[in-house]
Amino acid sequence: SSATDTIRATLFPGDGIGPEIAESVKQVFRTAEVPIEWEEHYIGDQVDPRTQSFLTWESLESVRRNRVGLKGPMATPIGKGHRSLNLTLRKELNLYANVRPCYSLPGYKTRYDDVNLITIRENTEGEYSGLEHQVVRGVVESLKIITRQASLRVAEYAFHYAKTHGRERVSAIHKANIMQKTDGLFLKCCREVAEKYPEITYEEVVIDNCCMMLVKNPALFDVLVMPNLYGDIISDLCAGLIGGLGLTPSCNIGEGGIALAEAVHGSAPDIAGKNMANPTALLLSSVSMLRHLNLHDKADRIQEAILSTIAEGKYRTADLGGTSTTTDFTKAICDHL
Amino acid sequence: SSATDTIRATLFPGDGIGPEIAESVKQVFRTAEVPIEWEEHYIGDQVDPRTQSFLTWESLESVRRNRVGLKGPMATPIGKGHRSLNLTLRKELNLYANVRPCYSLPGYKTRYDDVNLITIRENTEGEYSGLEHQVVRGVVESLKIITRQASLRVAEYAFHYAKTHGRERVSAIHKANIMQKTDGLFLKCCREVAEKYPEITYEEVVIDNCCMMLVKNPALFDVLVMPNLYGDIISDLCAGLIGGLGLTPSCNIGEGGIALAEAVHGSAPDIAGKNMANPTALLLSSVSMLRHLNLHDKADRIQEAILSTIAEGKYRTADLGGTSTTTDFTKAICDHL
Ligand SMILES: CC(C)[C@H](C(=O)O)[C@@H](O)C(=O)O
Ligand SMILES: CC(C)[C@H](C(=O)O)[C@@H](O)C(=O)O
Repeated sequence: SSATDTIRATLFPGDGIGPEIAESVKQVFRTAEVPIEWEEHYIGDQVDPRTQSFLTWESLESVRRNRVGLKGPMATPIGKGHRSLNLTLRKELNLYANVRPCYSLPGYKTRYDDVNLITIRENTEGEYSGLEHQVVRGVVESLKIITRQASLRVAEYAFHYAKTHGRERVSAIHKANIMQKTDGLFLKCCREVAEKYPEITYEEVVIDNCCMMLVKNPALFDVLVMPNLYGDIISDLCAGLIGGLGLTPSCNIGEGGIALAEAVHGSAPDIAGKNMANPTALLLSSVSMLRHLNLHDKADRIQEAILSTIAEGKYRTADLGGTSTTTDFTKAICDHL
Repeated sequence: SSATDTIRATLFPGDGIGPEIAESVKQVFRTAEVPIEWEEHYIGDQVDPRTQSFLTWESLESVRRNRVGLKGPMATPIGKGHRSLNLTLRKELNLYANVRPCYSLPGYKTRYDDVNLITIRENTEGEYSGLEHQVVRGVVESLKIITRQASLRVAEYAFHYAKTHGRERVSAIHKANIMQKTDGLFLKCCREVAEKYPEITYEEVVIDNCCMMLVKNPALFDVLVMPNLYGDIISDLCAGLIGGLGLTPSCNIGEGGIALAEAVHGSAPDIAGKNMANPTALLLSSVSMLRHLNLHDKADRIQEAILSTIAEGKYRTADLGGTSTTTDFTKAICDHL
C-alpha cells in the first residue's frame, strides 16, 4: 500500500487514565503524520450477551475488520455473570501470542541497565483453560492443557519475530522436568520449529532457573517463548527490571495477522482526569503496532522521540519522579518529532 | 533435653562437591561443639525397589528415626525406571514445607542490599501431582491438585514460623484471579489460619505482581507462603537477588516435626574433589537445622562466623570471586568461632 493510504485502526481508550493517555497517542500520531484513522470504541455500560462481557460485539467486530488496534487499561467491572474484558478479547480474537519488548530506558535508572529482551507468551491455553472442579470436599483440581497446535503457532511466531527483528537466540522456558507431558509437548514443538531456523540459536531453560538468571544477569537472554502462566510471570518480572508496567509495551497477535497493542498497567482511577498519567506504555505499544504494520520509519521516529524525552529528564511524569503533566510530556515528545 | 545430650542426625553428603562441603559442616560443628552425632548415608549404586530410587530404604529409615537430617547436592542418575532423589525424599518423608531464608550477605555485593525474607513453599502437591495424560494426539493435560489439608498445613507452618521468628507479615502468593477454585482454596486456608494469628499482618499478592515487586523492591516482603510451583519459581528468584543458590539455605519440614535441611545448588562435578567448592549454602542450611532443634545459641554463633568470614572478604571461594580453598574458608570460619 502506498504511503498515502490511510489505515483504519480500532482504539479502545479504556477506563481511568485511559482516555488521557490515548489522547497522547493521538496527538503524537498526528504530529508524526502517521497515516492512521482511529475508530474509537468504549466499554459498554452493560453486559453484551454476544460477548458475555462489557465489551460490545461492535467493538470486537471493529478489531476483526481493521485487523489492528490499540487498547488502554480496562478494569473489569466487579460482579458476576460476565467475563473479564482482557480474557474476552484474547478468546474472541484468538490472540495467541503476547509480545513484550523489554529494554532499559536510557536515562531512567533502575538496578539494571542492560535489559534488552522480548518475552513471547502463549496466550490462549495452558493454566488458563478455566477447567477446574472440586473432586471431593477439600480437594480441587485444575487442568493445564497444552496442544501441539497452539505450541507450534506461538513457537513459529517467536522464531519469525527473532529472525525479522535481528535477534539471535530463542529460549524456550518450561518445567518439563516435572510436567513431562505438557511442557514436554511444548518443548517438542519449539524444537521442531527451531530446526527451520538454523540461523537462530535455540536453548531450553527451566523456569525457576530462568527467573534466577534474569535477576542476576538479564543480558543472558534475547527472545523468550513460553506457555501461558510462565509468560504471565516472566513478562511482569522483566517489566520490573526496567521500572514497571508503566514503561513496557505489549502487543497481542491473533490468527490471520490481527494485532492488538495494549498498555498492561492498571487504569489508576486515583489519578484519572488529573493530567498526571504517564502515557509511555501506551505510546510504546502504539510503536509496536506500527512495527506490526511495517511502518518502521514512523515507529523509529516516535520511539526515538519518546526515549529522548525520558532520557533528557526535563519532562517526566510523577511516577518517574518528575512533575510534568501528561500534556506537557506529550508536547515534549511532539517537539522532538 | 539437657545441653550435654547428643542428638543423632542423618547426613547425606551427596554427589560431586557434596562430600567436601559436608566435611566443612562437620568441622564447623566440631569446633562449635554442637552436640550432634552424624549418621552418614550415601546414595546407593542401584535402584532400591522399596524406594524406587537410588536412595536406600535404610537411609530413609535413618531420617525417620532421627527426625532430623542434612543433605548435600544429589544428582539423580540418568535413566528410566526410577524416581528423582529429591522428589523421593519429599514424598517418602512427607516433607510438606520448603523453607528458604533469603537475606543479603553483608559485604557480598549484588544489585540488592535490602533482602530479608523467607519463602515457604508447599512441597507435596499442586502442579507436582505427576498426573498427566494425552487426551488425543497433540492435546495433553496435567492436573494441579490443591487440598485443604496440605494448604492448611503449610499455612499453619508459615504463620507459626513468622510468630516464632519475630516476623510481622505473611503474604500468600497466588493466581486465584485465574485459578479460582485451586488457588482460591489455598487462599481460603491461609485466611482461616491468619485469623488465629491477629498479631501477624496477612496479605495476598498475585504471583505476576509479586515477581515484579520482588525485583523492584524486595524489602516489601517478609514471609511468603505459596503453592508448590510458585514456591519453586519465587524461591529461586529470591536466591538470585542475593547471589544464587550457593548462598541460600533451605530446610524441608515433614509431618511429625521431621526436618531435612539441604543445599539446593547442584553437585558441580566439574570442580568436585578440587577443594574449590563453596560450603556456604550447606553451612547455612545446617544453621536452619540447628534452629529447628531449638539450638539457637549454636545457630547464632555459627551463622555469625560464616557471615563475618564472607563479609571480611579475605577468604572467599572462586564462585564469590576469591581464591580460597574450601578448607581455608572453613578454617577461617572455625577461627571466628
Ligand atoms: C488480569 C489477569 C487475568 C491477566 C493475566 O493473568 O493474564 C494479567 O495478569 C495479564 O498479564 O494480562
Ligand atoms: C529438580 C526439580 C525437580 C526441583 C523442583 O522443581 O522442585 C528443584 O527445582 C527444586 O526446587 O528443588
